[in-house]
Amino acid sequence: MIPFKSIIQLSRQNSNPLFLQISNQIINLIKNGTLRPAYRLPGTRAMAELLEVHRKTVIAAYDELNMQGWIDMIPQKGSYVNSKIPVLNYQRIENSELVFEKKESSFHYYKNQDFIAVEERPKKVDGIYIDDGICDYRLTPKEELARIYRNQISKKVNLDFLSYNSAHGNPILRKVLAEYLNNTRGLKIEKENVLITRGSQMGIHISAHLCLQKGDSILVGETNYQTADITFQSTGANLIRLKVDEEGITTSEISKHCKENKVRAIYVTSHHHHPTTVTLSAERRIRLLNLSQEYGFAIIEDDYDYDFHYSNSPILPLASHDQNGNVIYIGSICKLVAPVFRVGYLVAPSSFVNEAAKYRRYLDRQGDSLLELTFARFIKNGDLDRHTKKILKIYRERRDLICELLNKVCKDYVLFEKPKGGMAIWLILKSPYQWEKIKPIAAKKGLFLPDPKKYDYAKKGHNGVRIGFASLDLEEIKIFVEKFRSTFEENEKALK
Amino acid sequence: MIPFKSIIQLSRQNSNPLFLQISNQIINLIKNGTLRPAYRLPGTRAMAELLEVHRKTVIAAYDELNMQGWIDMIPQKGSYVNSKIPVLNYQRIENSELVFEKKESSFHYYKNQDFIAVEERPKKVDGIYIDDGICDYRLTPKEELARIYRNQISKKVNLDFLSYNSAHGNPILRKVLAEYLNNTRGLKIEKENVLITRGSQMGIHISAHLCLQKGDSILVGETNYQTADITFQSTGANLIRLKVDEEGITTSEISKHCKENKVRAIYVTSHHHHPTTVTLSAERRIRLLNLSQEYGFAIIEDDYDYDFHYSNSPILPLASHDQNGNVIYIGSICKLVAPVFRVGYLVAPSSFVNEAAKYRRYLDRQGDSLLELTFARFIKNGDLDRHTKKILKIYRERRDLICELLNKVCKDYVLFEKPKGGMAIWLILKSPYQWEKIKPIAAKKGLFLPDPKKYDYAKKGHNGVRIGFASLDLEEIKIFVEKFRSTFEENEKALK
Repeated sequence: MIPFKSIIQLSRQNSNPLFLQISNQIINLIKNGTLRPAYRLPGTRAMAELLEVHRKTVIAAYDELNMQGWIDMIPQKGSYVNSKIPVLNYQRIENSELVFEKKESSFHYYKNQDFIAVEERPKKVDGIYIDDGICDYRLTPKEELARIYRNQISKKVNLDFLSYNSAHGNPILRKVLAEYLNNTRGLKIEKENVLITRGSQMGIHISAHLCLQKGDSILVGETNYQTADITFQSTGANLIRLKVDEEGITTSEISKHCKENKVRAIYVTSHHHHPTTVTLSAERRIRLLNLSQEYGFAIIEDDYDYDFHYSNSPILPLASHDQNGNVIYIGSICKLVAPVFRVGYLVAPSSFVNEAAKYRRYLDRQGDSLLELTFARFIKNGDLDRHTKKILKIYRERRDLICELLNKVCKDYVLFEKPKGGMAIWLILKSPYQWEKIKPIAAKKGLFLPDPKKYDYAKKGHNGVRIGFASLDLEEIKIFVEKFRSTFEENEKALK
Repeated sequence: MIPFKSIIQLSRQNSNPLFLQISNQIINLIKNGTLRPAYRLPGTRAMAELLEVHRKTVIAAYDELNMQGWIDMIPQKGSYVNSKIPVLNYQRIENSELVFEKKESSFHYYKNQDFIAVEERPKKVDGIYIDDGICDYRLTPKEELARIYRNQISKKVNLDFLSYNSAHGNPILRKVLAEYLNNTRGLKIEKENVLITRGSQMGIHISAHLCLQKGDSILVGETNYQTADITFQSTGANLIRLKVDEEGITTSEISKHCKENKVRAIYVTSHHHHPTTVTLSAERRIRLLNLSQEYGFAIIEDDYDYDFHYSNSPILPLASHDQNGNVIYIGSICKLVAPVFRVGYLVAPSSFVNEAAKYRRYLDRQGDSLLELTFARFIKNGDLDRHTKKILKIYRERRDLICELLNKVCKDYVLFEKPKGGMAIWLILKSPYQWEKIKPIAAKKGLFLPDPKKYDYAKKGHNGVRIGFASLDLEEIKIFVEKFRSTFEENEKALK
């Protein structure tokens, strides 16, 4: 006789009712072979006494097992374990509490080696953490956004947006964004040219998937945004690297590459080249547009920091000059407000936008209509413009201070140009200093510097990293520069 | 002399300042070749008179052009169009207002023919619209969710969640979901086994991408969720179809297929097979687990409607029996609350979850931490449980009514089993009726039936579609059945 009393453990604190606790444990006994096929279970009265529960509870448990097909209840005869159920093969493991152990699966999944894990920002850093150039999320107009969100969710007219919606994005935001981009970036587009994305990365992923396949080539800078490089490579396409100088990505080799390869696209961060922050010159912009027309490749223009320009006005994107429908223009609102708000856009000819929406349908079905409505309102109200002006002023001060201090106390160690815009400085170490060596010394002082490898995916050995200044307040900038300076002093001692 | 006065149009209503309007229009004149390289612009005083603006405005415009590299300002000589700028090649189009016309792009993007556009639900349907089986979003606890969202956004402790975060999903929701799934589904998992997704579709996409590549095979039902079929095909993998009977997907042919093909995975909707709603029997569940262990393939278990069961308790998923780490368990919260809330999960061994997060990083960077925190709270409070109980009661009434009425007035036309759970009936038309013919007749009466093609992607000719009942209230169900019945009557007249 199987010792049900000691095997079946019941708890009145468990959120599952008793009958379910009983039936689930009997299922486990069947699966692991303790209760063999055709085994006759104790009668309900006997089992109730064994387990010290009401008989009705056992009847409910047996009914459950019967309905689920684990046992057969034969009137006047009793309840038998279904004779067709095979025993589950598994290696008994010591701690059988853990069904999913922290071990490899026994199936062999395909590991795409192109995808590398990215160093995540540590939580609650005790010290100064340097990012790639992201906004200061402490300045997010949180309360205002939450208020708008709540308003939008309550509106009767928005009820249908709670259901499944278009993979193109919320139609109201598409319209508002088309107007906003026309006004701020000199585009001349309509709602049909806008796909709402979850942010720039989704725009890059979708463009890569639609433009590239194995055997194709894409042109990128010799220094480039690493995440974009990896996204393009994951399609099986080949990266062709172009030199980058003080006028941005160079165009002189493009014809040659197009004649020798299946060049489908070029990826440019024209406003401020990532990572070096230089602006693509007017001459090269026009050359690029003409070349794309001549050779029939797409220009994927990632305008990740269009709004951040401190001296002159932002330079209009390539997309504003494109009369031939060759530019796929990618941007996001996250950078302006806070990274948590995953709202971006991809602007292109409507035929391309429709293809992109078809593909996107299979990625994550659709966007978040409520968040999209919230941002439509936030833009329409003029709140986004006001917020942008406010943070631009703050970031300009931060840029000025960090450049001034670096020039004052670190000029023996570093080379940099004061950036005209953006949220980061491209900081090159003078010889013989190296980021790889400086980084661990700085970390001991509570200064967490960026990983230099991610800025040199093409292994050019430029010895530069991006120092994001926008997310540091003036006090933090002072601490950063001081810690940075003392890191070099210590390094010099170590070198001697 | 170029007639600047008539070419340059200024408007004080425009949100761009006058100087920018001037510089942007001069840029366009340079690009289109009206102003040739080395052309000497009028002096600032002369231009100010021509355009009837203050001279300072023209100076600002010229400075802007100079900084952007479009013109060279030579002291004591004047301002000249940059002589290196090439003319932009484009075909002048009649309505030059539209930069992106609704035409094909001139680059040739790769159209992935596997992706088909899905019929979107029309807005504001005047009549009855039949869906695939989705929840009634009119029952969404909107105010409560908005209140929690606002609370979460205001909390000081959540400040860091406004920034970039882990691609794995919010750690608080991962923990809460692990507990919730352990309690409700008999899983024994920890936070490390959970990847937060945007909903089931993202889970399917990620699993497909990691498990399958060109040349591989995946097992699916001969009837299957079309979107999953298409997602798998898009990886280049081959679909092998298994028969589906009243016990769900059949397992007898699996060994044979595994011996002849590179079978990497099987896709099952075990709780209620999509589309036919049958439940996978206990016997087959164990066989499937044993086969996956024997041949080393993954089981992708899409438990899209686990919570919707009306007679007995929900049957525990395959994932609850899996001791070998072979099951990738996919689900979402959208189905329970409202499709707009894009929160789902993928549960698997932690090694797989980490690979999945790496890939996800390149899809859309990360999820929406604020929404994830909102749902963590909603689950933790017991609100999700209460909401589930409430809607289950409502949906059971709806199921009972629609089945009763269909049996009463349509039994000459249709065949169906009353579903034990889920949100849809699998409705087969008796010969000689056909959905393709019935659909347009019904549409004229304001009854919008599903597209039968999407239920028969494998072209088996079963003449069935899913009739979602959960989203229709009792009054709407009565109208549906009445319109449906009269459609057949009319069809019979048409047949005579």
